[in-house]
Amino acid sequence: MTGWLRIVGLGPGAGRLVTPEAQAVLDQATDAVGYIPYVARLPDRDGLVKHASDNRVELDRAAHALTLAAQGRRVAVVSSGDPGVFAMASAVFEAVETGPPAWRALDIEVLPGITAMLAAAARAGAPLGHDFCAINLSDNLKPWALIERRLRLAAEADFAMAFYNPRSAARPEGFARTLAILRETCADARPVIFARAVSTPDESLRVVPLPDATAGMADMRTVVLIGSSRTRLIRRDGRPPIVYTPRFAG
Amino acid sequence: MTGWLRIVGLGPGAGRLVTPEAQAVLDQATDAVGYIPYVARLPDRDGLVKHASDNRVELDRAAHALTLAAQGRRVAVVSSGDPGVFAMASAVFEAVETGPPAWRALDIEVLPGITAMLAAAARAGAPLGHDFCAINLSDNLKPWALIERRLRLAAEADFAMAFYNPRSAARPEGFARTLAILRETCADARPVIFARAVSTPDESLRVVPLPDATAGMADMRTVVLIGSSRTRLIRRDGRPPIVYTPRFAG
Repeated sequence: MTGWLRIVGLGPGAGRLVTPEAQAVLDQATDAVGYIPYVARLPDRDGLVKHASDNRVELDRAAHALTLAAQGRRVAVVSSGDPGVFAMASAVFEAVETGPPAWRALDIEVLPGITAMLAAAARAGAPLGHDFCAINLSDNLKPWALIERRLRLAAEADFAMAFYNPRSAARPEGFARTLAILRETCADARPVIFARAVSTPDESLRVVPLPDATAGMADMRTVVLIGSSRTRLIRRDGRPPIVYTPRFAG
Repeated sequence: MTGWLRIVGLGPGAGRLVTPEAQAVLDQATDAVGYIPYVARLPDRDGLVKHASDNRVELDRAAHALTLAAQGRRVAVVSSGDPGVFAMASAVFEAVETGPPAWRALDIEVLPGITAMLAAAARAGAPLGHDFCAINLSDNLKPWALIERRLRLAAEADFAMAFYNPRSAARPEGFARTLAILRETCADARPVIFARAVSTPDESLRVVPLPDATAGMADMRTVVLIGSSRTRLIRRDGRPPIVYTPRFAG
């Protein structure tokens, strides 16, 4: 058996958002490797071994997956959303670069998925319809000073912004600081979208003006979007407003 | 018949990247509205009327789709990639905001898709694996001065970047200026990825160091990605290098 490794994006949660390409690989894999809740999404079947691991062990998990593929297994490394956006693809390539030279000869592909910010944006309207940026607020991975610098430059550039990992139990204060910086640099009432668990039964969506946004509105399952200075609200009777950023600027 | 309007992301080209959710809507629609090559992707079937229109008439197209939905038709407005990323969703909401008040009561949803930058990133490795931004280089929609300002601030923030609409016959010089600004602000040999028509039979992928990138390497079907200062290349025998941006920074 010739092994391979596929880094698979499962999308934000619902089966209807898993691409046929991803599903085909999941059907052919002998091994599924990933963070516990993502591996749990896959139905059990004969011939599939599940390897679920805890958060924050991404490099160990990547090395394990590469080892299995080198042994001839057909390995699906599963990520929520898109594996290339704050997920497992970079971890696998870090492991390839620093691992045994033979790993570079492995058959490795990344299969894209619907990333959380785009699922959230679709639910809200089109808040990312003009230039935007995506920032991972986890300061496990970089110093807070760099996050702050990026926030200030992104506001100056008038990007709409998407924030991944806004808040965790280990660092509750970071997102409050993010909101404080945005209030200072944006100085307006542009909409902030808190989109939680989009496409799952736990989905919720909340739109508040920036001055009213608080850190407690986000948890580990939330992606947060904020408009640019141009972002608009369309109010509707009895339904949430539509949030969209016009295509034109200037 | 109760009408609805769905703004559907078809993904970058291949059927295997169309979500089941999008496919279900395409199967139920009475009308498909969109730019000629996107409508052409849909197979003909009884009960589906295709309304294909030229580029640069997005607002007229949106108003037409809304008029059909208000008449009770089931309308799929189709976009390549994700409809919320430099595509039809913002145009539809612009038309809703400025159109008849009754349009606000319509049943409208956006269905996300695999956007070009994420399909391209997956092919190259994980170049967008850390903070990044997405910029539409079309200066039909905004003044060049704003594009230039965003490019300089994005480089200062050390974002990886994705560029949509890098080049068209109507404005051949804009992308050359973009590359000149990047060479000046980045001042290194970080990789630039030219990804053309990803997932279609015309797919091509080219990775060149920034000093060697030229405007002629992009056309209307190309999305261009550029790494941050941290982006790395993994060289492989007889195959293209893997381009990835590590998760860590600082």
